[in-house]
Amino acid sequence: MNQPAYQKIDIEKKVLSENDRIAARLREALGDAGTLALNFIGSPGAGKTAFLERTLERLPMHTRAAVLTGDIQTENDAIRLQRYGYPVRQITTGGCCHLDARMVENHLDGWPAKGLELLFIENVGNLVCPTSYDLGEDAKVVVLSVTEGEDKPLKYPGIFRKAELMILNKIDLLPHVPFKAELARENARRIHPEIEIIDTSCTTGAGFDRWLQWLAARAERKRAEAMMALATHPV
Amino acid sequence: MNQPAYQKIDIEKKVLSENDRIAARLREALGDAGTLALNFIGSPGAGKTAFLERTLERLPMHTRAAVLTGDIQTENDAIRLQRYGYPVRQITTGGCCHLDARMVENHLDGWPAKGLELLFIENVGNLVCPTSYDLGEDAKVVVLSVTEGEDKPLKYPGIFRKAELMILNKIDLLPHVPFKAELARENARRIHPEIEIIDTSCTTGAGFDRWLQWLAARAERKRAEAMMALATHPV
Repeated sequence: MNQPAYQKIDIEKKVLSENDRIAARLREALGDAGTLALNFIGSPGAGKTAFLERTLERLPMHTRAAVLTGDIQTENDAIRLQRYGYPVRQITTGGCCHLDARMVENHLDGWPAKGLELLFIENVGNLVCPTSYDLGEDAKVVVLSVTEGEDKPLKYPGIFRKAELMILNKIDLLPHVPFKAELARENARRIHPEIEIIDTSCTTGAGFDRWLQWLAARAERKRAEAMMALATHPV
Repeated sequence: MNQPAYQKIDIEKKVLSENDRIAARLREALGDAGTLALNFIGSPGAGKTAFLERTLERLPMHTRAAVLTGDIQTENDAIRLQRYGYPVRQITTGGCCHLDARMVENHLDGWPAKGLELLFIENVGNLVCPTSYDLGEDAKVVVLSVTEGEDKPLKYPGIFRKAELMILNKIDLLPHVPFKAELARENARRIHPEIEIIDTSCTTGAGFDRWLQWLAARAERKRAEAMMALATHPV
């Protein structure tokens, strides 16, 4: 019975390399446009949608931002996010436990990607499977909430290793839960010493000034890179 | 490029049917022994391990119980659970996002399964992938915490459809979060009208009397079934 297992690995490699091919194409298109794309990954209930709601609410006027939000079922998150006046599309995976690059590419179709400064991609709620699928993003952002355990970075090292930024969310609940925030940060840095960490609360707004500064700086760098590329390799 | 996708489905079917074959063998062995096996599924941080800790702490003396606990990495949960004096084994999946029947079978090896009344299986923290893998259990139990959204049953219908019991956990946090518990219960019943629901808090102990009654009744029924089978089909 070894054959199916070997074949499975082989097919998974093919699926992943096909995904990487599409992700590279996406990354190039987003790079040309100077669009900063962030891939948000976290458990169901970590607060990814609420975090994006507060972010959209506080973006500087006239920011050209858009959101793709992934779920197994329902359009609930898109409905929540559409209230802020930015273009939002739901990706309903219908059972699939992660987004892949083709889903993202298909759902960007017809959007004026050239004009976007920020593309937020909210992955399916899952700390495991989304980690393996490159979506052409500039950075993965892992969202961990203080109602989960401090040892999550050790238990799910893949995403903490790949994420550039960790959002430690729901810090308003710290007085009510036994979560040791400093230990969680230490665990994240044990897995990924360079990971950046911002503590936030979507209820009180704590940490959003810092997050919006991070976002503005990262978007500025992306635009500068796009201009530099245009200058050295004019179309 | 359709070929890999078709092949993938084909291989997935083979993997799942191989899993079903092992799960059926496990179910038969557990049935003969009269062991009630429960498969706990929930997001990372839903409180599965804390729930099992409080359960082990409150089991009647001399209950013959054992725990298998799954994680991608670390033996943290087994270490936590071993304090209660019951046999506990960690299944470290090393990247795999779910437990499968073979992992369970391998980790039961050498245990006196004949003597067990209760086998608790804590799956990898993930609301999606574990749903597809039968572990030979009598029932799946989904653990949802009030720090997640009320719409989780609609977004992740698979597990709520398959679970016999939903544990609505961390209810001590209800005063501090915007979670509408009645709406969460309604959503679960929309997906699965017969699902049983018990509200619990591992901090205050609320709901554990009801849960332990449920567990005792379910274990009693399992033992009665095993005796009945023995009476009608003597070995």
